[in-house]
Amino acid sequence: MLENINSPRDLDKLDRAQIEALSREIRENIIDAVSKNGGHLASNLGIVEMTVALHRVFFVPQDTIVFDVGHQGYAHKLLTGRYGRFCTLRKYGGISGFTNREESEYDFVTAGHSGTALSTALGKAEANKLGHSDDYVVAVIGDGSFTNGETFEALDTCATLSDLRLLIVLNDNEMSISKNVGGLSRYFSRVRASRKYYDFKRGVEHFLNKIPLVGRALAKATKKVKDFIKRIVVGTNLFDSLGINYLGTVDGRDEARLEDVFREARRRACPCIVHVTTKKGSGYAPAESSPDVYHSVPPFDKDAGCVGAPSGFSAEFGKIMCDMASDNDKLVAVCAAMTDGTGLAGFSEKYPDRFFDVGIAEEHAATFCAGLALGGYTPVFAVYSTFAQRIYDQLIHDVSLQKAHVVFAIDRAGIVASDGVTHHGLFDVAMMSTVPGMKIYAPDSYAELRRALGDAISSDGPVAVRYPKGSEISYDRAGFTGKNVLTNKEGRSRTAIVTYSRLGACAVAAAKMIGDAKVVRLYRVHPLDFDELDAALDGVNLIYVLEEGIKSGGVGEKIAARYGIRVFVRAIDGFVPHGDTASLDASLGFTPEAVKSEVESILSANNTNV
Amino acid sequence: MLENINSPRDLDKLDRAQIEALSREIRENIIDAVSKNGGHLASNLGIVEMTVALHRVFFVPQDTIVFDVGHQGYAHKLLTGRYGRFCTLRKYGGISGFTNREESEYDFVTAGHSGTALSTALGKAEANKLGHSDDYVVAVIGDGSFTNGETFEALDTCATLSDLRLLIVLNDNEMSISKNVGGLSRYFSRVRASRKYYDFKRGVEHFLNKIPLVGRALAKATKKVKDFIKRIVVGTNLFDSLGINYLGTVDGRDEARLEDVFREARRRACPCIVHVTTKKGSGYAPAESSPDVYHSVPPFDKDAGCVGAPSGFSAEFGKIMCDMASDNDKLVAVCAAMTDGTGLAGFSEKYPDRFFDVGIAEEHAATFCAGLALGGYTPVFAVYSTFAQRIYDQLIHDVSLQKAHVVFAIDRAGIVASDGVTHHGLFDVAMMSTVPGMKIYAPDSYAELRRALGDAISSDGPVAVRYPKGSEISYDRAGFTGKNVLTNKEGRSRTAIVTYSRLGACAVAAAKMIGDAKVVRLYRVHPLDFDELDAALDGVNLIYVLEEGIKSGGVGEKIAARYGIRVFVRAIDGFVPHGDTASLDASLGFTPEAVKSEVESILSANNTNV
Repeated sequence: MLENINSPRDLDKLDRAQIEALSREIRENIIDAVSKNGGHLASNLGIVEMTVALHRVFFVPQDTIVFDVGHQGYAHKLLTGRYGRFCTLRKYGGISGFTNREESEYDFVTAGHSGTALSTALGKAEANKLGHSDDYVVAVIGDGSFTNGETFEALDTCATLSDLRLLIVLNDNEMSISKNVGGLSRYFSRVRASRKYYDFKRGVEHFLNKIPLVGRALAKATKKVKDFIKRIVVGTNLFDSLGINYLGTVDGRDEARLEDVFREARRRACPCIVHVTTKKGSGYAPAESSPDVYHSVPPFDKDAGCVGAPSGFSAEFGKIMCDMASDNDKLVAVCAAMTDGTGLAGFSEKYPDRFFDVGIAEEHAATFCAGLALGGYTPVFAVYSTFAQRIYDQLIHDVSLQKAHVVFAIDRAGIVASDGVTHHGLFDVAMMSTVPGMKIYAPDSYAELRRALGDAISSDGPVAVRYPKGSEISYDRAGFTGKNVLTNKEGRSRTAIVTYSRLGACAVAAAKMIGDAKVVRLYRVHPLDFDELDAALDGVNLIYVLEEGIKSGGVGEKIAARYGIRVFVRAIDGFVPHGDTASLDASLGFTPEAVKSEVESILSANNTNV
Repeated sequence: MLENINSPRDLDKLDRAQIEALSREIRENIIDAVSKNGGHLASNLGIVEMTVALHRVFFVPQDTIVFDVGHQGYAHKLLTGRYGRFCTLRKYGGISGFTNREESEYDFVTAGHSGTALSTALGKAEANKLGHSDDYVVAVIGDGSFTNGETFEALDTCATLSDLRLLIVLNDNEMSISKNVGGLSRYFSRVRASRKYYDFKRGVEHFLNKIPLVGRALAKATKKVKDFIKRIVVGTNLFDSLGINYLGTVDGRDEARLEDVFREARRRACPCIVHVTTKKGSGYAPAESSPDVYHSVPPFDKDAGCVGAPSGFSAEFGKIMCDMASDNDKLVAVCAAMTDGTGLAGFSEKYPDRFFDVGIAEEHAATFCAGLALGGYTPVFAVYSTFAQRIYDQLIHDVSLQKAHVVFAIDRAGIVASDGVTHHGLFDVAMMSTVPGMKIYAPDSYAELRRALGDAISSDGPVAVRYPKGSEISYDRAGFTGKNVLTNKEGRSRTAIVTYSRLGACAVAAAKMIGDAKVVRLYRVHPLDFDELDAALDGVNLIYVLEEGIKSGGVGEKIAARYGIRVFVRAIDGFVPHGDTASLDASLGFTPEAVKSEVESILSANNTNV
């Protein structure tokens, strides 16, 4: 059937049986593509019917749907002209695993960070209003993202904008990536427990609306009665307290019912929340029973299922934390809804009192760590590089300014491959090196990770340890000597390749191909140890910096500022799309061949200068 | 009486009459110091009794009080050994206008940004718990700060931590700096309207607690009855929904009552919110009637009162926005609880439909702007440089990545004098120049501000216009020519002083003293226009960069990376305290004399090299 869905308008003519068949087909396509290419499975399977219902009630792209985080847009993609290319999901040059503005006019934003959809949607809805348009805006937001502060900030604004044509769909699957935490999550559970709320409330409202409003005094009295009855009926009024229309709960598998409620919300033409209860992994038994494992998966065998155990640097980090915590009872670990992803699941079981998952709330996590540090503990906040972008002010105002000793374990630093543009960790070094007193370590092996965490924990003030996604790369590290600056050749070379983090292997291979070249690896990338660096670069004609990070504000710039025109910087200048690491590396010039050829062309062009 | 209060424990022996006299004396001292030195008046006058009550119930520094934003700590300072030095408030080397960790052991953090207190307090309370301490932690948070996402994130965590010894004081004065906005604010208003809530609830709870719990079934039934009665009585249950104990409202002028409720909260030994209704400006009539004017004031005559009209760059910005909006119906303005401070009050009255104050919610504001921009409008988000630190991720993920055309009017860029360390705008250039596609203009006069806003509005993608606090400085701008790079001398000079923003005047004066020197002003600081810059710096021996911003990641580093060892950078390397601009400039080397002397010593030391 999907073959015949070229645009969402092709959904309009389907009958109930066809919609059910289509939903099954969408699920099969998603399971098929994700098992082959990897991707986000459980969340996408959970909202198939919801997506169909949204596209039958709202007319995108005149209307707008904004998916928070953007990783749950697979069904949406299949229904908006991307069925044919869906097999290229997450491949280099293929369909993105997230909504992507450059991919389709049906994707309003390129999104990958949580908590931003409602703010974007509000902006678009205000623009519609200013332009006297009747177009509708829908924000689809998971219950996990509701605990993010930015969603709350936007929600707080919503309440005062009674004339906006805006629908908020609370996609309540009781999970972010891990099981949700916090007061809001508990509140949602209580609401879910009383399923009939929406019907009951509708009945009561229907009854109340029949009470005639005769004269002001009576109207006032009626309103009081209404409020009183509502309060008793509703039994809980978090959103009512905030002044936002609430419709819920609706079963996320009941497409017909969803359409009804979405139409009702649209009819109201004011900000409404529809609370949809969904099931992560719906329709694929292994994902239903282990939704956390199937949140984001590598390619797997559909029949055998996927074995989700963190590996690589994250897993090593978790092990090292457990080891260190056994000797150091002041060591505590903090994460923001990433217990598994950051490798801290083991720690959380072994040291439950010293482990804090604060939900999708990076800002709070960082300041919370400052409080712990000032209270005499040593918090390690494990956070993905891309999400650490959220804590710039907290790094400055709450950690550095207080001289609080907080360790930031910056996971997924550098290229993260298939997740792509919103998830690469390209900015952490440039961002953190502007923070007074900050130290940044960049281990490229498990052994160095252990050393770096040790150095960080025994240090003071803010310290970051950044490490890549995936596993350590094997190459000849034996020859490297030094403390903060590691060099693989004593004495002079014509060329030095300076690098850090994952690109050590590439640099060593390139140097071997070039011949008269040494590799300088920065174990501590900030502040640069210029004593060691001066020694390592003494007599070098060309300093070639290979940096898997943003160029402006990066380490290459600092080295160029020190060593002048002898320096050439090959770094990242803009955003990087999704794809396999090899393709991305090739596109960025991060291969031994590319480095060799660029070094040789610089040397031959400038052979009088350098 | 304050003379005899050397520590808060001296409060213990006071009787009721003495407490009232003391409160009067505190108010007099605050009004006196602020009228002489400037500072935050209205908020400090509002919480005098609350501060006394807190210090009588809690034993700081064993217990901890964290003041959110930190500008309402004047009474706290007067009661914690700083009475004698209080006349130095906000002076260089004197008492800070904010809580300051380095100033006193009674100040747990150096704070100036909103929304961070609860996260810090939670961290400290967890540390206390881990250390098996009975010490209590109190977070004092304004109702404005409750609309900040980070507070909400922390609140959400609170709900699950039933064993923490944590008190949250909601200081509800119905204001942030401007009048509060949003659903939460409306909710607080409704609660305030029903004053007797706390007493009534206490009565009911007292009654309910008398119902004996016999057997499980009966206990369950009793709980149901309790919940039912509570729901009716309470009438509103935002915090109950989130699972947090709520005690309120309490009149903020009733010191005895406040002590009672604080003791009750302490007795409960679990996270509680006490909702205190306070009045900004309490005890000083002019401030009571115009609390927004008296939020933060320059020195003024106590009897005549203060005339609060924004002046300088902020006022000019407001005027220019009004002018431009009349020709451009797509232009909209956004601010985060700073309608007056950013100079947008006039715009908000003239174009109410095109003006959005989203409350203290910078992250949301930035993403909201992206939505407006993608909807076809041109939003200008006016935000102080120091608070713009909050939107780093939104700049990258929500604006730049979408190629959304959002203009950021970065007010208070550079030194802000008396507000000090948390308020200087030192990081915006380094931060923003790492964002792909970002353009940054740095006008140093009103005429250039108009030109820059015009350039920014007619540009695309993310664009910032940064301008200093205060008024434009008069100096000879006539000789400057160029487009993005402005030079005051054609041809070669031995020295070029490169600068931007406020330091143009200093650079021109220094160049005059040096003689053979030109001044190069960067109108566009990012991306640097290297064609123009190459031409301006051709033949120069020493490039002296004078940068009122953080050195690491700053413009100086980019210039040094381009021009090598000919470059010397005088920028800011760390945090800067409070004080008058002249003293701060002197301490940072930002005077013509200091520049001249440094240039001459570099030239004489390196006269073979440069």
